[in-house]
Amino acid sequence: MIERIHTGNRMSKIVKHGGLVYLCGQVGDGNDISEQTTDCLGRIDNLLLTAGTSREHILHATIWLADIADFSQMNSIWDAWIPEGHAPARAGGQVKLARPELKVEIIICAAVI
Amino acid sequence: MIERIHTGNRMSKIVKHGGLVYLCGQVGDGNDISEQTTDCLGRIDNLLLTAGTSREHILHATIWLADIADFSQMNSIWDAWIPEGHAPARAGGQVKLARPELKVEIIICAAVI
Amino acid sequence: MIERIHTGNRMSKIVKHGGLVYLCGQVGDGNDISEQTTDCLGRIDNLLLTAGTSREHILHATIWLADIADFSQMNSIWDAWIPEGHAPARAGGQVKLARPELKVEIIICAAVI
Repeated sequence: MIERIHTGNRMSKIVKHGGLVYLCGQVGDGNDISEQTTDCLGRIDNLLLTAGTSREHILHATIWLADIADFSQMNSIWDAWIPEGHAPARAGGQVKLARPELKVEIIICAAVI
Repeated sequence: MIERIHTGNRMSKIVKHGGLVYLCGQVGDGNDISEQTTDCLGRIDNLLLTAGTSREHILHATIWLADIADFSQMNSIWDAWIPEGHAPARAGGQVKLARPELKVEIIICAAVI
Repeated sequence: MIERIHTGNRMSKIVKHGGLVYLCGQVGDGNDISEQTTDCLGRIDNLLLTAGTSREHILHATIWLADIADFSQMNSIWDAWIPEGHAPARAGGQVKLARPELKVEIIICAAVI
């Protein structure tokens, strides 16, 4: 049983299957890495809520930064967002993103409660 | 119980476990992004068939493009390939690939029917 | 039920859920790609052991190389490390990593025994 939410002809923003939820890679609006990371994590919160779960249940996150020099600024927003005792496995590197204004994209896999 | 199909000493093209199938990152033959994407998606169809599933059951896809300028051309092939109502979660960015002639690599996780 | 091991405020080195274990992206110490790959795979062995599994049970690996020219040297270490008949699905490409001295990062998803 696969449940797809916010589905288009290219991708679904949310896919649920077998107790897991996979989110479409999320980006954010904003003029710098801090603004974009904050907006991106807010979108992730909203999608996880729609999927029936929350940031406490993230299993794995992959973080792509257009410029790895933004790593520590992204991390400071990220660290404050992670609930204590609920940090996921994570990997991060520099990947040029789909549009030149994009500075960060985060790919989330979470458990459904 | 882990089932590995088309297994070598470096990687397996197909790994099945717990209702999921993981495919080895797929590339395609061809002289441009459209040809390579078409060939790549055909290989994915074949591997999913071998694994006992199909493109209707893809949960997540990660798309690496050697040149992000190829994004819209890749998308036009991708969009036509996705069955209506069955789009997976997806993320895509620019990643230099293992051989210089390669323009696209797609990493698939699907549900077994 | 999510089990997080070696957990900080940014990430967990190990996350277990639903029969799967997700490892934090692993890097290695060393002055060249061979040394770093060897050290990285040793760390993966240790984390899998802590998680109650082993390299025989890896389902998927994503390999990021800071320089894709290191691909064949990394592969020679990798191939010797993979137990016969237990190769995972795999994808690899060039991704600039979080610190300039890092040459390889490997992201592992494995089955818990």
